[in-house]
Amino acid sequence: MSEVLYVVGHKNPDTDSICSAIAFAYLWNEWKKKGILAQMKMPELEAVPVRQGEPNAETKFVLEKFGFSVPEMMTDGAGKKVALVDHSDVVQSVDNFAQAEVVAVVDHHKIGDVATPNPICFVNLPVGCSATTLKFLFDKTGVEIPKNIAGIMLSAILSDTVIFKSATTTPMDKTAGEELAKIAGVEDLTKLGIEVKSKLSDVSGMAVRDIIMRDYKDYNMSGKKVGAGQIEVIDLSLIEGRKDEIYNELVKMKQEGGYHSIVFMLTDIMKEGTELFVVTDEPALIEKAFGKKIEGKGMWLDGVMSRKKQVIPPLEKAFAG
Amino acid sequence: MSEVLYVVGHKNPDTDSICSAIAFAYLWNEWKKKGILAQMKMPELEAVPVRQGEPNAETKFVLEKFGFSVPEMMTDGAGKKVALVDHSDVVQSVDNFAQAEVVAVVDHHKIGDVATPNPICFVNLPVGCSATTLKFLFDKTGVEIPKNIAGIMLSAILSDTVIFKSATTTPMDKTAGEELAKIAGVEDLTKLGIEVKSKLSDVSGMAVRDIIMRDYKDYNMSGKKVGAGQIEVIDLSLIEGRKDEIYNELVKMKQEGGYHSIVFMLTDIMKEGTELFVVTDEPALIEKAFGKKIEGKGMWLDGVMSRKKQVIPPLEKAFAG
Ligand SMILES: [Mn+2]
Ligand SMILES: [Mn+2]
Repeated sequence: MSEVLYVVGHKNPDTDSICSAIAFAYLWNEWKKKGILAQMKMPELEAVPVRQGEPNAETKFVLEKFGFSVPEMMTDGAGKKVALVDHSDVVQSVDNFAQAEVVAVVDHHKIGDVATPNPICFVNLPVGCSATTLKFLFDKTGVEIPKNIAGIMLSAILSDTVIFKSATTTPMDKTAGEELAKIAGVEDLTKLGIEVKSKLSDVSGMAVRDIIMRDYKDYNMSGKKVGAGQIEVIDLSLIEGRKDEIYNELVKMKQEGGYHSIVFMLTDIMKEGTELFVVTDEPALIEKAFGKKIEGKGMWLDGVMSRKKQVIPPLEKAFAG
Repeated sequence: MSEVLYVVGHKNPDTDSICSAIAFAYLWNEWKKKGILAQMKMPELEAVPVRQGEPNAETKFVLEKFGFSVPEMMTDGAGKKVALVDHSDVVQSVDNFAQAEVVAVVDHHKIGDVATPNPICFVNLPVGCSATTLKFLFDKTGVEIPKNIAGIMLSAILSDTVIFKSATTTPMDKTAGEELAKIAGVEDLTKLGIEVKSKLSDVSGMAVRDIIMRDYKDYNMSGKKVGAGQIEVIDLSLIEGRKDEIYNELVKMKQEGGYHSIVFMLTDIMKEGTELFVVTDEPALIEKAFGKKIEGKGMWLDGVMSRKKQVIPPLEKAFAG
């Protein structure tokens, strides 16, 4: 039996990291059969998808819907040959990274600090999802995409691009999504997208602190401690009943953590906007940042969906004076 | 006028670094016209090829043969947007690299330490030449290769792969070369290859120390200082008249530099072998490394063309005992 190539996404995996690992492992094995590995003298390994952590509810739904079992867990890279998908940063990669041999990288992020001692296949496109980069590679190397693989690739794109609404979405993601939908026999992309994204929208069973901390970061803004969290839901009515609880928890966190301000984004995917909860020592500063008055728990920001691109920059500017 | 993207190869440029800069600049501008940049939301810059150093005699010949002028010199990256070809190591890249913005990378080497703050297009294939990676990108994005661009891409491949004889050559380089030859109207690839490679074979006007130092490196082998240089010529008869002079200079260098050993590879491209000059404190050790006796100035090593792959490893093993 030939040696194994472990195809692995980043730590704390999302749907793209797990589905693109499955898709790239399939593609690699097709490259082997078709002699494409040989054309570039790449090692003729047998690729197997793995994961570095528990799949979330969204990913479990996607795998089940398209008939895949959850890949095996693999966190230690020591002595293994690996292909990375959806990341090129050592800190996000397998443990004992220095003792792993990286054979290939397929990604869509900024270029990280993965360096190699030998030439490898490294393809990163500045698109919204690793599965879009993979779609390019399938097409351009003449490998047909099986129906179920198309289904999980499409789901990864819908997930990463928030149903083509995120600021990171490119026309190439849309084209890839439409073509994959045809192959997968998915007639209504938006319907599938809503189904996929709604899996993480259900917070009914979650403790309030877990809802807030699922995606939360601290920032230092001109010497002031600022916290910023986000939850994306398919429809804000889904968390209507938790809003008071969330707001009160933010007030508590602000006191306990010595924050100047905490903002928390309740992003409505379908309405394409964010209800921004604000607890702060200087309401006027936050109002200046977004050009809106705080009413009740905060403000509605139409068209705002990205913390990185649409919330942090105006805040930093306002704090800088 | 739109902003400029400087497409640049590595420092101390070879034919691939300069020809692939010209070819990628052309490809980028076609991507702009065809809307391919827009598909990935890449910046719609006007690409211009530049170089970080003097073209060597081989590169000058290639540019002239296919009707290109020498690209402008550009060594300082500060405040500029750049696309890198034929390298992804900061040390080989433009000065003030930290103040440059890297927009794309096309390469065929090991992955270096170039990291970026944003997602970019980064395509590295484990093939023999950057122009082979570019041929893949031209074909797969549906851009026709003009006749003269095909000529310099073909020349870069013939140069980097030593007319398809180097250990780094892949079947993909050969296929790319053959297809480019058709476009360029080159009937005899080997003839063009010999013409290209012979330009650096002419050492008649060079000082002996310059011949030796053109490609020379120091190594520490189990605590012993070892030097290893190489000259590749199309036919060893071209340097027949300089052999005594070269050998005597090596003897001098060994004394002056406190070396345990110096080996110097006189590689015959067409015969696919190397005459290895040896000056050493322990002839038996070098003989053990290559399983051959030293006769006269050294030994003939059939099939040996790569210092990195075929000379340094057996030496290191012998020195390690
Ligand atoms: Mn992703
Ligand atoms: Mn090269």
